[in-house]
Amino acid sequence: MQRLGPWSREAWAALALQLLRPPRAPCAGFAEARLKTQLESDKEKSSFVIKTPKGTRDLGPQQMIIREKILTAVISCFKRHGAKGLDTPAFELKEVLMEKYGEDSRLIYELKDQGGELLALRYDLTVPFARYLATNKIKKMKCYHIGKVWRRESPSITQGRYREFCQCDFDIAGHFDPMIPDAECLKIIYEILNALQLGDFLIKMSWKDVRQEMVGKIGLAPEVADCIGVYIQQHGGVSLVEQLLQDPKLSQNKQALEGLGDLKLLFEYLTLFGITEKISFDLSLARGLDYYTGVIYEAVLLQTPARQGEEPLGVGSVAAGGRYDGLVGMFDPKGRKVPCVGLSIGVERIFSIVEQRMEATEKIQVTETQVLVAAAQKNFLKERMKLIAELWDAGIKAEMLYKKNPSFLTQLHYCEETGIPLVAIIGEQELKDGVIKLRSVASREEVDIKREYIVTEIQRRMSES
Amino acid sequence: MQRLGPWSREAWAALALQLLRPPRAPCAGFAEARLKTQLESDKEKSSFVIKTPKGTRDLGPQQMIIREKILTAVISCFKRHGAKGLDTPAFELKEVLMEKYGEDSRLIYELKDQGGELLALRYDLTVPFARYLATNKIKKMKCYHIGKVWRRESPSITQGRYREFCQCDFDIAGHFDPMIPDAECLKIIYEILNALQLGDFLIKMSWKDVRQEMVGKIGLAPEVADCIGVYIQQHGGVSLVEQLLQDPKLSQNKQALEGLGDLKLLFEYLTLFGITEKISFDLSLARGLDYYTGVIYEAVLLQTPARQGEEPLGVGSVAAGGRYDGLVGMFDPKGRKVPCVGLSIGVERIFSIVEQRMEATEKIQVTETQVLVAAAQKNFLKERMKLIAELWDAGIKAEMLYKKNPSFLTQLHYCEETGIPLVAIIGEQELKDGVIKLRSVASREEVDIKREYIVTEIQRRMSES
Repeated sequence: MQRLGPWSREAWAALALQLLRPPRAPCAGFAEARLKTQLESDKEKSSFVIKTPKGTRDLGPQQMIIREKILTAVISCFKRHGAKGLDTPAFELKEVLMEKYGEDSRLIYELKDQGGELLALRYDLTVPFARYLATNKIKKMKCYHIGKVWRRESPSITQGRYREFCQCDFDIAGHFDPMIPDAECLKIIYEILNALQLGDFLIKMSWKDVRQEMVGKIGLAPEVADCIGVYIQQHGGVSLVEQLLQDPKLSQNKQALEGLGDLKLLFEYLTLFGITEKISFDLSLARGLDYYTGVIYEAVLLQTPARQGEEPLGVGSVAAGGRYDGLVGMFDPKGRKVPCVGLSIGVERIFSIVEQRMEATEKIQVTETQVLVAAAQKNFLKERMKLIAELWDAGIKAEMLYKKNPSFLTQLHYCEETGIPLVAIIGEQELKDGVIKLRSVASREEVDIKREYIVTEIQRRMSES
Repeated sequence: MQRLGPWSREAWAALALQLLRPPRAPCAGFAEARLKTQLESDKEKSSFVIKTPKGTRDLGPQQMIIREKILTAVISCFKRHGAKGLDTPAFELKEVLMEKYGEDSRLIYELKDQGGELLALRYDLTVPFARYLATNKIKKMKCYHIGKVWRRESPSITQGRYREFCQCDFDIAGHFDPMIPDAECLKIIYEILNALQLGDFLIKMSWKDVRQEMVGKIGLAPEVADCIGVYIQQHGGVSLVEQLLQDPKLSQNKQALEGLGDLKLLFEYLTLFGITEKISFDLSLARGLDYYTGVIYEAVLLQTPARQGEEPLGVGSVAAGGRYDGLVGMFDPKGRKVPCVGLSIGVERIFSIVEQRMEATEKIQVTETQVLVAAAQKNFLKERMKLIAELWDAGIKAEMLYKKNPSFLTQLHYCEETGIPLVAIIGEQELKDGVIKLRSVASREEVDIKREYIVTEIQRRMSES
């Protein structure tokens, strides 16, 4: 799918913050050791610092929780629509990526020629998907494809756009009756943006492409097409077709009417799916990539929740897609076409919005640990280890501190820091009585549980909470 | 973590099959168009074929199901042990990867110098993890890290070893009391291999490294160390230390006794975890990578289930790990060390075994679709679309055929092929009666359900099955 549209300065400012946090330490000693290599290699003349490459970032535990939430919502929607899973390599033969992205091809990361095949990192998931279909002679498939892609965006132009980012694609390949799969793609974008509760959104279709079809392919007079364009801006897409059919100029142009049939169909289907109120045409929007063959669409957020005391992130593109009927044929020896339509969810963009909201509202727990195995006195390491092994073997999520004799307070603090709800405490008295003291971190209540019942008691409490 | 040990020819034969299936089509026409580029670029002089790069593969829907099963088991074990999630970029600054892998450094994929930073694809997940700790000045962390890594293995040497493969790492960083985190790492390998039911396995520790510690660091006489080696081969690790303490040569060597303390501790802990019967020493095993600083371990399968009429895959390494106390310090300006111990699960190897078993036993369903929305007569597309939208909005996993008028048989066949259990049928009669005919594909029973109850009825049936 094409790269999602430009973001507002605010959006990128917010992300830049994230990208820079936590601050990277300059590593003087290390830098000296590497200085020679540096001067030879680094054209940017920046002294070497241990960091991630420009335009990339690590995802720490908190960010991983957020990404998991987003991907879970996206994948469950894809599966609800009967999509199969697919994975392709991070790099492709250079030839596979050539002549697919027009101008943007210069942004492709190439691998160094170390002998053997010439390779390049994938630029999106659409071309690899098409290559997969061609390689395996697959003529019909509905699948989802999630993974990282890489683009050598120039920071100066893109104000910090990521060079490594995650895409979630859904694609339908095959010869079908017109506009039925297309409508489902729009429905999926609608469902996902609803599920993620990102605020009000609009799915914009590129009028330029519709016009091109009318004028170029159907032979409609440009001025007529432009009238339609103006009309659409005023009335939107839904009642468009009915109106057009009554238009005297058009009704004389049989071809045009036929050409409009697809658009009519699409809006009929979108009406049946109950999502037309979110669909509109955009005069400025146009195909970004060479391989699109029809109308493209892009979903934008109308407003996004803002951090306290901060500007809202502003309008931004969070999903995009379209039809690419010619791409698979480019990989086929006889040029046999497999029509495709698909969509791509822009995870990074959604990520920054969800992250803002979660930081604002909830304290994110980064582990799922249910119980800490703790000791009340010294020299209970072996007892702790025996107990925690029992818990692990019973499938209970348990931790212990890796010290021989951690203080009881340290152990309680660890639970409060990390949000562990229960503490299983062993001490001399407990050992003598053959019990484990089970403490609720929140209520501080402690109960003695017979050693042989501790597993079932913890499981009971977990099933309740 | 180090690359897992060599595989048997049988294992690779089996994988080669997988790698080659389905066969790649030579693309004559395309090849001509690319011929010039070819001759210039492809040093291997093979005519250009649309395929994945050498040593890489696509994962199709069936394989994705298997990988999902494996990763689910691995991740749930990591989370049971309280690990946090982490993700790092696919490539790092070249300097970050330099001088970490010794001989193997030549297998690192470098990116082409297109201006700016010099980059290379990560070779494992351990060095990026250490870089992450150093970059963010983290002194203590227990986390898991799952992703692809890339190695330019020479096929001639490795008989088809993958150049792109997935690793699942678990690491514990921080200053703790000796051998407690180490024991947990071994417990985790034990739990995962048990959970995946791969057959009998053994976790082997490298005797060479133990010997090196004794002789090099503790100053034990080489011949004494060798006696111990021989002894270990006979009696295994468990009762090792008791015996050694009674050894006259050793008992005179106070240092050696102290040096053996750690090994004694480790085996005490492994006993408490109840996994010693799976632990043994291996005289041949030794550190593969520069960054290991202590004893390394590797888990091997003793036998693996075989396809009917095929040789068993033979012994193979499926997990490996060890301690690397110096790696983080290499990234710190002042060389401050953060001791680390970790493990890596070899997904590809496990994958081929699980795949064999699943192919042998079960028919893999690649989608989760619960119901197909079908029509009994022509001209019910709009009715189908209205209904399926209702089902999707209710969270039901539903599909429909993308044809205006698919034959009823075609729709039933689709259910049988893909394993969809239910069919929601609309026809003239149903429309008139305000019902949906719900058909069980297995039993072929059909019941009329009032339109307003169809969602709850489908949900009820799904909760039962």
